[in-house]
Amino acid sequence: MKNLWLKTIHSDNTKLFMTPETPILGKKVEVKIRVKNNTEVKKIILQRKYNGETVLRQSLKSYVRKDFRYYVFELEVNEPVIQYRFIIETNEKLYFYNQVGIFDYYTLDCFDFKIIADQYMPKWVRQSVFYQIFPDRFYNGNKDNDVQDGQFIYDGYKSQKKDWNAPLEPYEKTGNLNFYGGDLEGITEKIEYLQELGVTALYLTPIFEAPSSHKYDCTDFEQVDPHFGGNKALQELVENLHKKGMKIILDISINHTGITHSWFKEHPEYYGKKVNGETEFWCGVKTLPVLSYENQELHDVIYKNEDSILKRYVKEPFYIDGWRFDVGHNVGRLNGYQGYQALWRNIRTNLKEQNKELYLMAEHWGDASEYLQGDMWDGTMNYFGFYRPITKYFDVNDVAYTWQMEYSLPKKDTANRCKTEIVQYYGRIPGQLQDYLLNSLSSHDVMRLGDFTKEETFISAMILQFLFKGTPCVYYGEENGLEGVKSFTEGNRVPMEWDLGKANARIRNIYKKMIELRKTNPVLQEGSFVVLDSPDHLAYLRFDDELAFLYVDMIPGETVLDLCVLPIIEKIDLIFGENISYQLEKDKIYLQSKTKQPVLLQMNIG
Amino acid sequence: MKNLWLKTIHSDNTKLFMTPETPILGKKVEVKIRVKNNTEVKKIILQRKYNGETVLRQSLKSYVRKDFRYYVFELEVNEPVIQYRFIIETNEKLYFYNQVGIFDYYTLDCFDFKIIADQYMPKWVRQSVFYQIFPDRFYNGNKDNDVQDGQFIYDGYKSQKKDWNAPLEPYEKTGNLNFYGGDLEGITEKIEYLQELGVTALYLTPIFEAPSSHKYDCTDFEQVDPHFGGNKALQELVENLHKKGMKIILDISINHTGITHSWFKEHPEYYGKKVNGETEFWCGVKTLPVLSYENQELHDVIYKNEDSILKRYVKEPFYIDGWRFDVGHNVGRLNGYQGYQALWRNIRTNLKEQNKELYLMAEHWGDASEYLQGDMWDGTMNYFGFYRPITKYFDVNDVAYTWQMEYSLPKKDTANRCKTEIVQYYGRIPGQLQDYLLNSLSSHDVMRLGDFTKEETFISAMILQFLFKGTPCVYYGEENGLEGVKSFTEGNRVPMEWDLGKANARIRNIYKKMIELRKTNPVLQEGSFVVLDSPDHLAYLRFDDELAFLYVDMIPGETVLDLCVLPIIEKIDLIFGENISYQLEKDKIYLQSKTKQPVLLQMNIG
Repeated sequence: MKNLWLKTIHSDNTKLFMTPETPILGKKVEVKIRVKNNTEVKKIILQRKYNGETVLRQSLKSYVRKDFRYYVFELEVNEPVIQYRFIIETNEKLYFYNQVGIFDYYTLDCFDFKIIADQYMPKWVRQSVFYQIFPDRFYNGNKDNDVQDGQFIYDGYKSQKKDWNAPLEPYEKTGNLNFYGGDLEGITEKIEYLQELGVTALYLTPIFEAPSSHKYDCTDFEQVDPHFGGNKALQELVENLHKKGMKIILDISINHTGITHSWFKEHPEYYGKKVNGETEFWCGVKTLPVLSYENQELHDVIYKNEDSILKRYVKEPFYIDGWRFDVGHNVGRLNGYQGYQALWRNIRTNLKEQNKELYLMAEHWGDASEYLQGDMWDGTMNYFGFYRPITKYFDVNDVAYTWQMEYSLPKKDTANRCKTEIVQYYGRIPGQLQDYLLNSLSSHDVMRLGDFTKEETFISAMILQFLFKGTPCVYYGEENGLEGVKSFTEGNRVPMEWDLGKANARIRNIYKKMIELRKTNPVLQEGSFVVLDSPDHLAYLRFDDELAFLYVDMIPGETVLDLCVLPIIEKIDLIFGENISYQLEKDKIYLQSKTKQPVLLQMNIG
Repeated sequence: MKNLWLKTIHSDNTKLFMTPETPILGKKVEVKIRVKNNTEVKKIILQRKYNGETVLRQSLKSYVRKDFRYYVFELEVNEPVIQYRFIIETNEKLYFYNQVGIFDYYTLDCFDFKIIADQYMPKWVRQSVFYQIFPDRFYNGNKDNDVQDGQFIYDGYKSQKKDWNAPLEPYEKTGNLNFYGGDLEGITEKIEYLQELGVTALYLTPIFEAPSSHKYDCTDFEQVDPHFGGNKALQELVENLHKKGMKIILDISINHTGITHSWFKEHPEYYGKKVNGETEFWCGVKTLPVLSYENQELHDVIYKNEDSILKRYVKEPFYIDGWRFDVGHNVGRLNGYQGYQALWRNIRTNLKEQNKELYLMAEHWGDASEYLQGDMWDGTMNYFGFYRPITKYFDVNDVAYTWQMEYSLPKKDTANRCKTEIVQYYGRIPGQLQDYLLNSLSSHDVMRLGDFTKEETFISAMILQFLFKGTPCVYYGEENGLEGVKSFTEGNRVPMEWDLGKANARIRNIYKKMIELRKTNPVLQEGSFVVLDSPDHLAYLRFDDELAFLYVDMIPGETVLDLCVLPIIEKIDLIFGENISYQLEKDKIYLQSKTKQPVLLQMNIG
């Protein structure tokens, strides 16, 4: 194969290739690129934007280490965002290397590498393993605050008190007024369980006062739902988590309230109207009137005032560690008014002033790169760059996504497609933000992946989740192979099974192993990544200067992968995989498996 | 070849595929896509963003016409920008069709089609053929206002009065103070010449008072340089052009002034400073101090006040038809301050309020797609989407571009690269703006293309220029094969040769023919375009519902092109090309040429 050296080129914004980690406006930043030594590369040049001008920078120096030549560039951090690519010169040709890869034509700016100055990221996030809880279904810590049967009527339904073991029923039968009694006291009680599992941060679906069990139809943002234990229970939960070194983020919709919120009567000016004067409801759902940020006072009560909704919980006495913004892609977008960019920038500025360690993460199902340029969100639920390509690769229907035709995408050739989808998307997101994407296999919005896959497939996806660039998030019960109900959307919100004797011990053990692996290996938290070429397998590599992990979704037979992007490999350990033989020859690894299974190798770099 | 029907798919934002041409917020817009009838397509669906939500729209109807099936979608124009793509369903697979083409994976949003509501474009532009004039070198209409030898000293140089036929000298010898005496009176006198040639709009490099002959170092934006005839001469020029139905745009740098501008002493606060307090100069040039838009008063004097620089010339008594903004990519970008987006949006709003027919066009050498989303510029000097890929294809060095390594890109395989570069870039620009890109082969900033090519190559590039999506702009003298001086940058600014006996009659005739062709064929002004697949040739197609033009850069031998994107072709006429044989067979055209030459065919669509 010609030009194999092209595959040895690598740069990114991890500490191996950029220093300091947080470049400062007015100072310098050092950027490196490396390529196997003694190839046909004559020279590497860095092309950057400087106040809009395209300028070239020669390398300060180059040196050889572990068989690779490193080119070092020193850049002036003169402006808030530095955009750059590399130009690789050979005798025959010029190549352009940007965040998507190598090209022999002049590429668009949007795929350039980007450095964001003064971009303080909440580093605890990437060191975390998140755990998502749907509070009504996790653990009932206080039976006195349970919703009672028929206690209230809402949206044509009566509230139903359910036994913990009662089967889930679809919306049509419950109106989402089926309550299993889970509460914040219950979560506090189970901290030890979470610690034993190893997760370090919680993400709770909404807990503010609301009639439904999902609580996206909020009645009062200032009160934790009394059935969840009220504000006091939240305060206690956070205190107890923090004592154990754990973090917690809360979920909120600032896009809409419930129709029972007092604002809906008292502040009709906060809500969006159609041209004909009728209320705008979120996706037409008649209990969810949409907030209109055309109203300036709304900005005050949502995030500007000292006692605004978003500020009050990040301060005393609550001190939560971040927010997950429900339907982030809809917020501040209402027909003629599309002021969402300024809105999100203001929210960020206001909240980070309170606590720069806050994690601001939003729901987004599509290409969220517009929001991930450093001035709006820290991260998203990474449906677009992880969940959707990966589940499609594993041939699982993306049931929660409105666009239901994706079913008919064939399994054939999906490894290439999966790779392309991942690489194009990460190519749009500045490296400094890539570790802050939240990678889930299941959530309250999509089915439990395990319900729709064979165990081996689920394990393969799960191992990849812990290897993937971004932060993993486990959906409660997933760690024990908890089964949901497959036939309706809310079927993923089953009550937690607390009899661990009923847990899938194999899955639970692998989770514990992967959580531990993630927590003890910085390379998995912040290292470089490469999706390897392999038309029939998904093969994913994480590496830093000393260690590399290689994941391959194996099919029976032999697989050859090119590892030439890595320096000398000194030692290989098999972390997962049964009856696997592997052999390194030059830059290639030859893997052999008798069965379809995920394989995980750890490699020491010489 | 499999899946040939994929190449028959087409949609864009021309009137064949979108009605009305200017969609209105709150109303509906109709969008169409077509594909050859009786293929394996089961269904076509439109996926759009609706207040940030990804939603699907079924087609309203579909019908067959001229062997193609059209799918018609009706979209609510609920928000200022509608972003959409098509999903094409077959029994085997789903395809995604966006502005770049067909994909079998889920693409990024940035390549979606876009409709901009209430986007009134200055339609006269796309009906125009522009003509760029460097006034000092065009025609001396008033010898009384000529700069005299030694009349002034500036930047270490003395002013030099040059005979019209005196050879050009490089900057080192002249300091750009070599004056040939051309003026606005001269242009007025030559309107008849321009009319005979057929051009309909002028773009003048700067004319405001300034010491140098290029006048980018402005002393006073309120005065047309007295050596060019002063404000009165401008008023007369515009009046005379308008009488003949011609238009004129002026060139201005609002990024910097000359160091002799009174503001530099009287308003130091208008200018940018480095951290150490020193003045910021444009690219370090000590005569060009940079304006800083961090100063709010500067916004008033540049574009907000009624007598601001940008407003005064679009009003009585001048009534110019637009602005060309020098170094548009630098304006409003100065280290910590990068408020350029808001600045350009404000400039647009302020100026279009004066006259919505104004053409606001800017210099930009790179990927300007950020500025071309409907809220900033109408167009750019299209270096990135036309000049650079095309001149590289014709193996000419891109001398004016700072990045001088591009020389070593090999000729081989350039047709594919050229196509990719064009298609990726047009894919980022909303269709409503694509006709407003200004396509030049030469300018005051790059060499005269003809100086660096064989005549046949020049003609090939020129024919393509008149076919290309966007508006063509002829650099003065180019129409007669005027030769510049090849050895230095300013060598393109040679005095115009008025002895038409010395003109290259062949070139002049082709220009006149192409100008006429462009003016009489709306398909060339606003029709659809496709860059055809052809690894060894550049092949470019323009078409509407009735007519198509096909350009091919032929090499000796046979060429086959697939025209299946077009409905039934009823008649073919050869417009350019010698000893060409061509034959249509099914959807393919077989062309044969004995020589390397451009070929232009006109086809009537049945």
